[in-house]
Amino acid sequence: MTITEIGRQAKEVAGIIGIIGSAKKEEGLKSAAAALLEGEAEILSANQDDVIKATAAGMSQGLIDRLELTPRRIEDMAEGLLAVAALEDPVGEVISMKMRPNGLTIGQKRVPLGVVGIIYEARPNVTADAFGLCFKSGNAVILKGGSDALESNKAIVKWLRTGLSRAGLPENILQLITDTDREKTKEFMRLREYVDVLIPRGGAGLIKSVVDNSTIPVIETGTGNCHIFVDESADFDMALDIIFNAKTQRIGVCNACESLLVHRSVADQFLPLLNQRLLTKSVEVRADQEACKIVKDFVPATEEDWGTEYLDYIVSLKLVDSVEEAISHINRYNTKHSEAIITNDYNNAQKFLNEIDAAAVYVNASTRFTDGYEFGFGAEIGISTQKLHARGPMGLKELTTTKYIIYGNGQIRP
Amino acid sequence: MTITEIGRQAKEVAGIIGIIGSAKKEEGLKSAAAALLEGEAEILSANQDDVIKATAAGMSQGLIDRLELTPRRIEDMAEGLLAVAALEDPVGEVISMKMRPNGLTIGQKRVPLGVVGIIYEARPNVTADAFGLCFKSGNAVILKGGSDALESNKAIVKWLRTGLSRAGLPENILQLITDTDREKTKEFMRLREYVDVLIPRGGAGLIKSVVDNSTIPVIETGTGNCHIFVDESADFDMALDIIFNAKTQRIGVCNACESLLVHRSVADQFLPLLNQRLLTKSVEVRADQEACKIVKDFVPATEEDWGTEYLDYIVSLKLVDSVEEAISHINRYNTKHSEAIITNDYNNAQKFLNEIDAAAVYVNASTRFTDGYEFGFGAEIGISTQKLHARGPMGLKELTTTKYIIYGNGQIRP
Repeated sequence: MTITEIGRQAKEVAGIIGIIGSAKKEEGLKSAAAALLEGEAEILSANQDDVIKATAAGMSQGLIDRLELTPRRIEDMAEGLLAVAALEDPVGEVISMKMRPNGLTIGQKRVPLGVVGIIYEARPNVTADAFGLCFKSGNAVILKGGSDALESNKAIVKWLRTGLSRAGLPENILQLITDTDREKTKEFMRLREYVDVLIPRGGAGLIKSVVDNSTIPVIETGTGNCHIFVDESADFDMALDIIFNAKTQRIGVCNACESLLVHRSVADQFLPLLNQRLLTKSVEVRADQEACKIVKDFVPATEEDWGTEYLDYIVSLKLVDSVEEAISHINRYNTKHSEAIITNDYNNAQKFLNEIDAAAVYVNASTRFTDGYEFGFGAEIGISTQKLHARGPMGLKELTTTKYIIYGNGQIRP
Repeated sequence: MTITEIGRQAKEVAGIIGIIGSAKKEEGLKSAAAALLEGEAEILSANQDDVIKATAAGMSQGLIDRLELTPRRIEDMAEGLLAVAALEDPVGEVISMKMRPNGLTIGQKRVPLGVVGIIYEARPNVTADAFGLCFKSGNAVILKGGSDALESNKAIVKWLRTGLSRAGLPENILQLITDTDREKTKEFMRLREYVDVLIPRGGAGLIKSVVDNSTIPVIETGTGNCHIFVDESADFDMALDIIFNAKTQRIGVCNACESLLVHRSVADQFLPLLNQRLLTKSVEVRADQEACKIVKDFVPATEEDWGTEYLDYIVSLKLVDSVEEAISHINRYNTKHSEAIITNDYNNAQKFLNEIDAAAVYVNASTRFTDGYEFGFGAEIGISTQKLHARGPMGLKELTTTKYIIYGNGQIRP
């Protein structure tokens, strides 16, 4: 099948699922979850093919771990679909409705985006997750997974489609692009006629390639060079707990802390305590000259460190003279993801909240909370680091748009 | 100055104007309006240079009319800025704020987009309008106008910047790209590092070029192949009034009606009346075979007509058997702008509202109402025909984004 045909098929069913109502979608999600469990053996076997191939090709153990499925992981996927089924359906909500002086009644109603395209890397569980969220919000979805997970994705999609079909729903609600040719991926990114939004999920390279090549509107997700600023008035214990949590609780995620700013006036007292705490997880601290003088374990940072998302047990550190200097440094080097200040000063807290340019700005809490579940959305399709349409964690609502519905009784424009 | 420098300067001031508060912005807009009036003679003289050049180059009278400024048009621009100054400032509104079970208080706050780029064609009044709306919503703006209006735009921008400066505001809130080289325009479209959104305003060609070349998120505006469906149960007088208004009140605009669908069962009675009414403005009706048999004045339509935005005294017409056929035809050929049904049937009205895929869907009213002023926004930067970020008329609110502000007291993620 050509990429254009896939697009056309998606557009065709999008019209239907946008208006079928919550009950039918819930039935489809439950049926898809059941089918996934039924297909377990086949999915595991396909996944083993991927794992063997990836191992032979020298894939790192970390990536193999993300690629490999287990019965438990398949159960998790199925449970994920049931959890999404139980969420409130955003579609159909009339956000506002007002009467104009001429009697026209203008309402703004939440409707599905239409067709959502997702380009992602090796984790096959994204296949079921992304399908669930897009379908629940009334969208058809076209997935393009990484070639390393191709057999796994094929098997997962086959069983999800079987579930849809058993619920009397069109299988083309979910389509997978199985052609791993790069030119085909580029063709997909230019399918503006049929695809309403493209969401890349993966590393910086993938996202850049989508941004550069897509003519479809893109929601950029992902990279997070997140900072924590320890202000003069910070509670040291709180600062140590938050930094330790944000840096080490999970290192490979976009809301992990990558850079620390410390007020110069507390550096002598705070840095040795920080060093002690971070050493318990062997975190390497790449610090400016002055900080290196205070703690011998620190290694000198280069200019490049200020802009680096390590995703590792490494953190950069810089001393600053004021909250203003901290804000200016962060706004220069951050990726507009999540930033935190640790302070007991009211004015500095407010200043930081107002002036930092990022999707999520924290006072006295870990950056690790930037997450659809932690924010109470019950789901997450990704974390937007751009400003258009959605900013921060994206749940079901962010997978919808609106249309104006206007009730008249013969109004014409004077 | 290079395009990159312009971008960097805009980004620099964006940080400042995002937080200066409404009063200062109002002062800046008033000062800019006053400066515009002060510069009238210089602006008119620059505009005459453009008009003379355009006339010599053979520009059509219609386009010259759009290009030419008069003292009245300059007053209108200044009044436009004062009207925008008086609108409610969307920036700073906290849309929602909730406490999570762990005590984190998460708010979603409206903030400026940052830097807005606008690429537009010959009308120089857009220069002042776009500046006013972008600045009021806290954004820096980079304008790239059509080369035909270059001297006019330079003069307008010079005086607007003078007004900003007199109010103690940075002039770089407003910058104009004066280099008309195509490569520079392409460079501008790829300035993703500094520009947060790009809004093309103009014909289909301009919009396509921006969509194809931009790496900056784009809001597509403009083209409208708008339909009116006359249902079996329609009130004929109402249908005639609405069609006449939507087709002829102003022909060159995106919310004008371009295509009619008429229920076959009323064609014999309705079409002659329609013909009579449209003949009063010499509207050419390009109709399907069957309709042509009923009214001899109609001319045969081709497949191409169904997809054409005429922007002229021409309308296409097709007979259909049902509301379903009307919906399916519209969803196939429309540009997702504005669509209307004329009916007295409750179920058909609801079906049409639910199933038409467009920014604005009307029952018993003219499509000409799709407009920021008519919708009560007090302003309009354009009409979005895409689904991401904004759909339909865009006012000040659509020139903002949000950020999450999170108040904690030491929370870490378990």
